[in-house]
Amino acid sequence: MEKLSKTKGMNRRDLLAMIGVAAGGAAMYHAMTNLGFAQESGYKGPIKLEGDPKGASVLILGAGLAGMTAALELRQAGYKVQILEFNNRPGGRNWTIRGGDVVTELCGYTQKCEFDEGLYINPGPWRIPYHHHALLDYCRRLGVKLEPFQQLNRNAFLHNTKAFGGKPQRVRDIMTDLRGHVSELLAKTTQKGALDEEVTKEDQEILLQALKSWGILDNDYKYKESVRNSEFRGFKKDPGGGLSGEPIPSTPLSLSDVLNSGLWRSLGNFANYEFQTTMFQPAGGMDMIGKAFAREVGDLITYNAKVIKIEQDESGVTAYYEDTTKPGTVNKVSADWCVCTIPLTVLSQIEMNVGDAMAAAIRAVPYASSVKVGLQFKRRFWEEDEHIFGGISYTDLPIRQISYPSNDYLSTGKGVVLGCYTWNGPNSYEFTAMTPEERVAKCVEYGAQIHPQYKEEFENGISWAWHRSPFTLGCAGDWSDEARKEHYKNLCEIDGRIVLAGEHASYLPAWMEGAILSSLDAITRLHQRVMAG
Amino acid sequence: MEKLSKTKGMNRRDLLAMIGVAAGGAAMYHAMTNLGFAQESGYKGPIKLEGDPKGASVLILGAGLAGMTAALELRQAGYKVQILEFNNRPGGRNWTIRGGDVVTELCGYTQKCEFDEGLYINPGPWRIPYHHHALLDYCRRLGVKLEPFQQLNRNAFLHNTKAFGGKPQRVRDIMTDLRGHVSELLAKTTQKGALDEEVTKEDQEILLQALKSWGILDNDYKYKESVRNSEFRGFKKDPGGGLSGEPIPSTPLSLSDVLNSGLWRSLGNFANYEFQTTMFQPAGGMDMIGKAFAREVGDLITYNAKVIKIEQDESGVTAYYEDTTKPGTVNKVSADWCVCTIPLTVLSQIEMNVGDAMAAAIRAVPYASSVKVGLQFKRRFWEEDEHIFGGISYTDLPIRQISYPSNDYLSTGKGVVLGCYTWNGPNSYEFTAMTPEERVAKCVEYGAQIHPQYKEEFENGISWAWHRSPFTLGCAGDWSDEARKEHYKNLCEIDGRIVLAGEHASYLPAWMEGAILSSLDAITRLHQRVMAG
Repeated sequence: MEKLSKTKGMNRRDLLAMIGVAAGGAAMYHAMTNLGFAQESGYKGPIKLEGDPKGASVLILGAGLAGMTAALELRQAGYKVQILEFNNRPGGRNWTIRGGDVVTELCGYTQKCEFDEGLYINPGPWRIPYHHHALLDYCRRLGVKLEPFQQLNRNAFLHNTKAFGGKPQRVRDIMTDLRGHVSELLAKTTQKGALDEEVTKEDQEILLQALKSWGILDNDYKYKESVRNSEFRGFKKDPGGGLSGEPIPSTPLSLSDVLNSGLWRSLGNFANYEFQTTMFQPAGGMDMIGKAFAREVGDLITYNAKVIKIEQDESGVTAYYEDTTKPGTVNKVSADWCVCTIPLTVLSQIEMNVGDAMAAAIRAVPYASSVKVGLQFKRRFWEEDEHIFGGISYTDLPIRQISYPSNDYLSTGKGVVLGCYTWNGPNSYEFTAMTPEERVAKCVEYGAQIHPQYKEEFENGISWAWHRSPFTLGCAGDWSDEARKEHYKNLCEIDGRIVLAGEHASYLPAWMEGAILSSLDAITRLHQRVMAG
Repeated sequence: MEKLSKTKGMNRRDLLAMIGVAAGGAAMYHAMTNLGFAQESGYKGPIKLEGDPKGASVLILGAGLAGMTAALELRQAGYKVQILEFNNRPGGRNWTIRGGDVVTELCGYTQKCEFDEGLYINPGPWRIPYHHHALLDYCRRLGVKLEPFQQLNRNAFLHNTKAFGGKPQRVRDIMTDLRGHVSELLAKTTQKGALDEEVTKEDQEILLQALKSWGILDNDYKYKESVRNSEFRGFKKDPGGGLSGEPIPSTPLSLSDVLNSGLWRSLGNFANYEFQTTMFQPAGGMDMIGKAFAREVGDLITYNAKVIKIEQDESGVTAYYEDTTKPGTVNKVSADWCVCTIPLTVLSQIEMNVGDAMAAAIRAVPYASSVKVGLQFKRRFWEEDEHIFGGISYTDLPIRQISYPSNDYLSTGKGVVLGCYTWNGPNSYEFTAMTPEERVAKCVEYGAQIHPQYKEEFENGISWAWHRSPFTLGCAGDWSDEARKEHYKNLCEIDGRIVLAGEHASYLPAWMEGAILSSLDAITRLHQRVMAG
């Protein structure tokens, strides 16, 4: 389409009307986007790799989301594709552990999951932001059913062992009271004239109205106990019916208590762009996505293939791999090109003849450490006793958080919570160093400080420490700004006949969207190279 | 149980441990509640009406949630129960309109719903707060499957025709920018010493940290464009993968623009206790609740029964009703007692011999006016084009809000949005006064100012104006503080052999929880009266 802004003799509204009539609403909407009405989006819909690759072949290393995205799109574009995968399943870190599954970490820690039918944990990715457009588009195209993931539950807890006598506070109270006290303080200083240099008198008047409305202040701009206040922070006794229905307001926490509790530190977990409503999870487990991809490209995958050497020359790329079901047997496979999605932790230990720049980049990225523990309980006491439906409680205990299931609400059966999710920091190393049994026992011990029901209701648990994960040796690429500046471009550039892809080759490390967008970017460039001849 | 706080020679922790061992975790949790660890809850679980009513009979007027709750519990307690219901279906305002349904308002406005299979609107209640414990408990007991209702979607719109050139803003931007600017201003005045009289130096230091964290301020306590800032308010170009992945930060709105837009007025809709996460809706439509109740008590209901007179004397209560399928035929039914859930708008027009106090109370409560319009579109453009998955956009247009479906996300089929939901105010009267065709046409016209796709994608619509609703003559009881003070107790007190119940006899008007709690309170008192003799 000709650049719309350059069209002469027509104003923007006329032009839009014309496009609307000629091409329908969707075209009009996209035209509006170009004209600056709507927000930009990174992903522009399914990629189109145009031109005939004339039988060129691509070897893909890794059947995670990056690898399977590449396989799906490259085969579609006419390439001969094959995939080598270390695990005996597709998906990589897109993975769900269910009852009956046996998992083995390095050092031989083997666990059999004892969860009941229908219960699971996602040891890797577990939630999808609404703006991860590429991933959501693949879910739509591949028929993966999504359901909302509750990140923010205002009735979940914020917990600091050193505040409020160790008693967990509702998210709702901390959010409402911090906002209220901040609003009261700013209203007071505004009325004292402290903003006269910064804000016009007219805007100060509106600011006072906004603080009153947003902060739930009374007519004197005070944040304090009242029925009106409780309509936001919740009541001591909720409004009810008939003669017993009169509500009793709750008492706000003091500013000093809120500040000194440090619980405000957790609020960013609800306001972050990556964690904003509406988030999703696939119904039935995160691996529904990997399985959906595998329905498309599963025929291309060789499982149990541990790559031990990657060789390229002017004519192609050869990967040597061990069949892990027949230890010691080395096979090889060749292709014209290679898309390598092997995590850098592992790749840095594989012999591969690439240039110094890429080799240095591969060594430059440390991997985040992370541990997750799933705990099965006899009943969903967090719902029944505490009215917590999905969402996450954050704590300063080593378990860091407890996430409640975002599905099967109000069911009367058993339930599994994510009883520990560490991300870097000493807690990750501490839990990684424990045996699986110790991890679960510690989670029950710590969690009982937030939910006393833990000890009575606990049945069994399972854990995964990503630094002991044989196929990743860590959780995800953990770029520093400095490393990214020096090495990121070198990591992503095609080296001879090899291009890297995966979450580590993206600005969205640890996210599935990063893996997919990295892959799409990589294969687009690879295809251009092939077409250029 | 003996009052725990009076137990001597034992500290609270020991006592809890003892209870935990002896009675299990749930008992321990409830003991903790009594000890003040956990929050109070209005509803204490299924009511127990103990004692034999010895064949006493109760006539229930209205098969909405209040009436069916009373029927279920009273039959369970040994009463002989029957219900008269005006409509030809159970549920009352707990109601869902689907394709094929024919609905008729007063003045003969008859509409046939043209929605496709599986699509619906809930003209009455449409969302359930997590703290509506009684309603949720009945859903659990009656097997109603619930799914999350998205009230807050930070990617939905806030829209003021007179702000930002009429361009809708994302909820996310208004929330983040207001919080950011407020934090910056308070940080600045704090640093100038303006809080020295109010807040200790130590707390001021923590306040500055909190404002920086919560408000997303930079190291100089400024709220301004940066990658860090965009990690909360969203990017101009989202982070991506490979060589094309570098993000571009977005630019915050100015304080003055945010204030003058008035869009902050809508933020209370997300912070209100009644609207906080996690909210629910029944899968498949709100009337799944009414239908579940009717599975229990449907055999007790006489449908199409228009009550025209209620008579009580010392021996019992008699209701006279017209069978609306045979106009002119008057039947009567008698019982020892009567639970009347007829809306006050209708009840005030029915002859009934109650005392002056109750009669005055019945006349004292005006009913809120409300209109809802459902619109079916050819595709879910709000998801496909604008990445809005559930949630509500608020506007100053007469439609007031657009609510996107909280189910079937990412489906490629058609969709129905709630294209108008007014609550009192001139817009309610304006829409009520229109013909159904005009209402739908106006919704499409107004809605297109927010979603230009409306005009191209619209297929059909249906509306319900509650002030034209034959069975309610309004939407819900709309108590003023003054009226409640003077009349509420008189409305709820048993008058002879009659007790009233329904959302209008609660502190939760318009909510299903109010109807149920009102009913439980009423029948508890009625049962006490019967037992007393």
